[in-house]
Amino acid sequence: MNTECNPDRIGHYPFVAESFHLDFSGHLLLSVLGNHLLNCSNRHSSDRGFGISLLNEHKYTWVLSRLSIDLSEMPCQNEPFIIDTWVDSIYRLFTDRNYVIRSPQDKVLGYAKSVWAIIDLESRKPIDLLSIDGGRIVEHICKKECPINKPQRIRLSDKKEVVSEFTAAYTDIDMNGHFNSIKYIEHVMNTFSLDFYREKRLKHFEIAYVSECYFGDTIVISREQIDATTYFIEIAKKGEKVLCRCSLLFE
Amino acid sequence: MNTECNPDRIGHYPFVAESFHLDFSGHLLLSVLGNHLLNCSNRHSSDRGFGISLLNEHKYTWVLSRLSIDLSEMPCQNEPFIIDTWVDSIYRLFTDRNYVIRSPQDKVLGYAKSVWAIIDLESRKPIDLLSIDGGRIVEHICKKECPINKPQRIRLSDKKEVVSEFTAAYTDIDMNGHFNSIKYIEHVMNTFSLDFYREKRLKHFEIAYVSECYFGDTIVISREQIDATTYFIEIAKKGEKVLCRCSLLFE
Repeated sequence: MNTECNPDRIGHYPFVAESFHLDFSGHLLLSVLGNHLLNCSNRHSSDRGFGISLLNEHKYTWVLSRLSIDLSEMPCQNEPFIIDTWVDSIYRLFTDRNYVIRSPQDKVLGYAKSVWAIIDLESRKPIDLLSIDGGRIVEHICKKECPINKPQRIRLSDKKEVVSEFTAAYTDIDMNGHFNSIKYIEHVMNTFSLDFYREKRLKHFEIAYVSECYFGDTIVISREQIDATTYFIEIAKKGEKVLCRCSLLFE
Repeated sequence: MNTECNPDRIGHYPFVAESFHLDFSGHLLLSVLGNHLLNCSNRHSSDRGFGISLLNEHKYTWVLSRLSIDLSEMPCQNEPFIIDTWVDSIYRLFTDRNYVIRSPQDKVLGYAKSVWAIIDLESRKPIDLLSIDGGRIVEHICKKECPINKPQRIRLSDKKEVVSEFTAAYTDIDMNGHFNSIKYIEHVMNTFSLDFYREKRLKHFEIAYVSECYFGDTIVISREQIDATTYFIEIAKKGEKVLCRCSLLFE
């Protein structure tokens, strides 16, 4: 298996930080960047014959399991930026996809890593990635540097506090009928105030998806401050299972 | 003044209905389309020397006053589409910008119209458009067909009912520090259920912005069903002023 970084294994997707995708400080919203990362993942895999639409034809789909984003800088109004993405590794049930977010002059703005599984749309069970199309997905592996923080074990103690509660609404639901992976990020970011963001910059964001929820579910967000700059967040279906856990590191 | 449609007065912006920009039915979210329309407006005006960044240098900014969207079809997963936009007319304090949303094969998917003012960032007062840069904005007017429904007078009676209440959060606020024009659309769309959207398709959406609100404000959405297919919606700062009014026509 050749894992040398053949340049055509890396997808390059240019963007501009559009005026109507910015937060109050004029920086790109993390949720918009998150959507760009996922859309690049789909474009990259679709171009290589294993995108969502193709999997859907076999009653399979991609499911995002984890997403980590390290940011040294967030693009500002009208700034062009490029997302590079490639398949870093394939396990039996998971694949790691890496990203660099960079300026057109190759200044690195951030790194990201996502972990995905393929599931059967009916049984919701994971599929052995190597069983699909004769395991040809391994032909897309590329070893390229992506020095992002290792995923953390995110566990909240009983010091956690409920910071918001809401009902899953129409725009929260994705085309699989589940709560949209990126919408969680938006709800998490909304647990902090503008004054908080005026003083602190998000350096590292991490989300681990645990279970799924649906339209109309009541969702509770709990938060625990771990140290001066770290927050752990847990999103749960009210009185029931945990849906996802996040870690946010500010500076 | 030459208002013939010189082709370079029309901007053409290609998009794809990306997988992570879709609703549960696999169609592009109206809020995503709304953001695309506004971002095209800014790219078109920036390319012609009157974009937001340039106005900001003069302590002015563009403010969206109305937006109407007529949709015969909403793009589905991976479908490419093009937004054409141009300046339709200039009054003293307002300018109308039109849009066609079309397939690459020139099939019209929808039309849109927006009304904008330029305001002084400090006084919040509107600026005479013809006073800027010697009125050169009129050189960009283009007369091209855009057969969209005329704006309606949206007035709710005392039959209106409160359908949601929430607090303006971080991702609701735009880079001017106000509630984001498109985020209102998202909150409006969220007042209907998935079952409702399974049965009805949105044909016409219209929003008229009345006043501004800020982070932390409590916002109340009221709705009134006008006839079998028409809803009027009013968004207000709780116990205070109306912020915007919408009309939605389904089929």
